[in-house]
Amino acid sequence: MKHSALQDENCSIARTLAVLGERWTLVILRQAFMGRRRFDDIQRDLGVARNILTERLGTLVAEGILERRRYLERPPRDEYRLTQKGRDLYPVLISLMQWGDRYTAGESGPPLRLVHLTCGHETNPAFVCSHCGDAMDPREVRPEPGPGVLAGAT
Amino acid sequence: MKHSALQDENCSIARTLAVLGERWTLVILRQAFMGRRRFDDIQRDLGVARNILTERLGTLVAEGILERRRYLERPPRDEYRLTQKGRDLYPVLISLMQWGDRYTAGESGPPLRLVHLTCGHETNPAFVCSHCGDAMDPREVRPEPGPGVLAGAT
Repeated sequence: MKHSALQDENCSIARTLAVLGERWTLVILRQAFMGRRRFDDIQRDLGVARNILTERLGTLVAEGILERRRYLERPPRDEYRLTQKGRDLYPVLISLMQWGDRYTAGESGPPLRLVHLTCGHETNPAFVCSHCGDAMDPREVRPEPGPGVLAGAT
Repeated sequence: MKHSALQDENCSIARTLAVLGERWTLVILRQAFMGRRRFDDIQRDLGVARNILTERLGTLVAEGILERRRYLERPPRDEYRLTQKGRDLYPVLISLMQWGDRYTAGESGPPLRLVHLTCGHETNPAFVCSHCGDAMDPREVRPEPGPGVLAGAT
């Protein structure tokens, strides 16, 4: 599937994947959430080809998910910081991590644990209903057409 | 990046992307959560080539995310249903959808709304701390090495 095809779909999941679905992109964002902001650090951590990393970071900046800030003038060096739009991807990263912790981590257990600084406890974030506060079970949710549904769209 | 390279990383996000990161896979799962279980229906909805859909469904069955069940003997017809492992991907899909609703839906608004059947209200699931129940802000979370961290891993 071409990513442009995803963007044209009338679906917020497909449109998000049109932005984030390229290989490396979500792993680069993982590094950003871990505080890795500099090209050379990210490149070394991931072992990704420099031209690919340049391209992916450029896309993330163009999408407003990362912003580029100069931290050194001579030689010129930039770092990449999450914007609010980027920070709003946190549930995507955490939910990918949680599923991986449960199903791919094996006997040794999860590589990371998360500490919620405001309450001081280890946390395993969960989705709850914005109305009643109960945990979300997909079998108890019905999707309905929203305001942006297209007439005749599947 | 090869997907095998992702699987070898000591990171639950990368390992999850090694399973789900191929194009089409998350969109096929979206269809599963929408109740689309039959090959021909999914193929028609997505317009994906039949050989690619066969391959992706085969991977999802091999991973235990979908299970194949025969619903017609003559001619033989199978459907694909989410397992518990598959249903546990719901937060991934919901978080992708919410971000897309916020940043890609445009003026017309989200294509879908979700109704929580247990409380009867429209819901916009919130991602909250399992300990204190507060909404999660990535700036208030500290990742720490978990039991599965490798000595010397970055």
